[in-house]
Amino acid sequence: MKEISKLLDYRSDIRIVDATLRDGGLVNNFRFTDEFVKDLYQTNLKAGVDVMEFGYKASKEMFDVKDFGKWKFCDDEDIRAVVGNNDTNLKIAVMADVGRCDYKTDIRPRSESPVDVIRVATYLNQIPAAVDVIEDAAAKGYEVTCNIMAISNAQEGDIRVALDILGKTPVNVFYIVDSFGALFPEQIARIAAMYCEFAAKYGKKVGIHAHNNQQLAFANTIEAVGDGVDWLDGTYSEMGRGAGNCAMELLLAFLKNPKYNIYPAIQFIEKHMNKLKADGVVWGYDMQYLLTGMLNQHPRTAIQFTKDKRKDFSEFYKEVTSQE
Amino acid sequence: MKEISKLLDYRSDIRIVDATLRDGGLVNNFRFTDEFVKDLYQTNLKAGVDVMEFGYKASKEMFDVKDFGKWKFCDDEDIRAVVGNNDTNLKIAVMADVGRCDYKTDIRPRSESPVDVIRVATYLNQIPAAVDVIEDAAAKGYEVTCNIMAISNAQEGDIRVALDILGKTPVNVFYIVDSFGALFPEQIARIAAMYCEFAAKYGKKVGIHAHNNQQLAFANTIEAVGDGVDWLDGTYSEMGRGAGNCAMELLLAFLKNPKYNIYPAIQFIEKHMNKLKADGVVWGYDMQYLLTGMLNQHPRTAIQFTKDKRKDFSEFYKEVTSQE
Repeated sequence: MKEISKLLDYRSDIRIVDATLRDGGLVNNFRFTDEFVKDLYQTNLKAGVDVMEFGYKASKEMFDVKDFGKWKFCDDEDIRAVVGNNDTNLKIAVMADVGRCDYKTDIRPRSESPVDVIRVATYLNQIPAAVDVIEDAAAKGYEVTCNIMAISNAQEGDIRVALDILGKTPVNVFYIVDSFGALFPEQIARIAAMYCEFAAKYGKKVGIHAHNNQQLAFANTIEAVGDGVDWLDGTYSEMGRGAGNCAMELLLAFLKNPKYNIYPAIQFIEKHMNKLKADGVVWGYDMQYLLTGMLNQHPRTAIQFTKDKRKDFSEFYKEVTSQE
Repeated sequence: MKEISKLLDYRSDIRIVDATLRDGGLVNNFRFTDEFVKDLYQTNLKAGVDVMEFGYKASKEMFDVKDFGKWKFCDDEDIRAVVGNNDTNLKIAVMADVGRCDYKTDIRPRSESPVDVIRVATYLNQIPAAVDVIEDAAAKGYEVTCNIMAISNAQEGDIRVALDILGKTPVNVFYIVDSFGALFPEQIARIAAMYCEFAAKYGKKVGIHAHNNQQLAFANTIEAVGDGVDWLDGTYSEMGRGAGNCAMELLLAFLKNPKYNIYPAIQFIEKHMNKLKADGVVWGYDMQYLLTGMLNQHPRTAIQFTKDKRKDFSEFYKEVTSQE
């Protein structure tokens, strides 16, 4: 049982990362209005959020800019149009997806960019390529996180090897990523202990990015807080791929550091997130996501089920269990 | 950190209680169709659910039968029309609300009734009256649970006194009830330890009934499973007052006892719960419930906000924080 102080006091090392544009962008092809993005930036400033992730730094060789909103690519100029010189305490992040990012050319030196943090997303089998992205970003002056995806179906031994490799790079934060929303809080406790062991050895921090397939995104995130994990991803109204993420408003309500403030989040949700939902953008917990989470599967079948506006859950159950 | 076996194995003492008609009935004034109730009974049988709660045993002196569906009153004849002689392993429960139930006359001896379990719902300040209901029900031959409501704003010392009084009665199960959806898993761990201490002393079991105001109903329930709590309340599609309860389908997906089976639950939800929602019955997590949960308040203001179809969350925040 954790110490009671873990609930009533706070650790000043905690950092909240707003991933609304990046993970939420997966739901609407990154087509947010400029007003949405500007209000989101102001909201994060007022709410005391520590890092705002604007989107992906996706390869324009691989993806056609006409098919997506601008936050799929996060040109420095587009970010600067929102944040100006960003003379604030809010750090700006973008995600570089290993294998889908022309990082050597598209990521400019930090001194020329409004971006502060590069988040490197990788699968376990791409770790050497991830190391290259990390070293490139660190050499250009950025803070760097490494987000190892889909660990719920990885071998613990492989994760340990990956953390040991990453420990020797200039990366600042190891991220626990429950891509399939398959993990329970007790598993998070064990995984956090493993990540924290390597973080202590190499002088790194640990973060968590949760999905809500089993209504555990918030529960897993606060479990991690009690386990020494510092960087916490949230999204407003839990907007994110499939079942969505940990709700920023739940995090702001939970965390006790007086620098955090839920009221701007409430105002933003009232103005923007209700409207997105009314406009037909769909995300969040539902039976199809429970089932892929329970089975520790990628949510792509559940996302397609949602897109097709299907409601035949029992047929879907037979489909996903036959994929085992 | 709990033993890994707590996740991968199972305790045969676990009992799942379906509270859909009772807590869900608070949302639609207990106006379920007969087909819904019959299908629910069959679903619980097939899913391996241990106890099905049909509703309240409410006083007909106090409540007009015209204003509610029949499951507000749970006449034995109405239950028997669904379950016949119930020659099954599924136990039938009803709830007796202390102060709102004519238990001496309305609860007949168990030998004449299809009911097996009387669940006595009480506030801390009604414990002596609850004891009277418990003793009456036990003398009539029933299994009895005592559900102490709204403990999130009670003094621990008072709860200990209540459990010590209840320990000396013939009650079988002490229930942890998070009426306001205000508790976090770490608090559940501490409360479960306290309840289990008295349960061990007096030879009782412990149960949990959670609410989903902060998306923690399932997380708190599985936390309790790891802490030795045996009786677990769930409702299909988490139907229940305000933000709803722990979803039965999440419980069935999580618990490892092979007697439990999620597929009938999926079929039931597909046929009935989707339709209830389409018909405009509203329940479940939303910002207004997060706010009353965060503030450890009764959800009545959030329920009224929902009924009024309001979406002005920031105004609501000012209202509920001014009630402190």
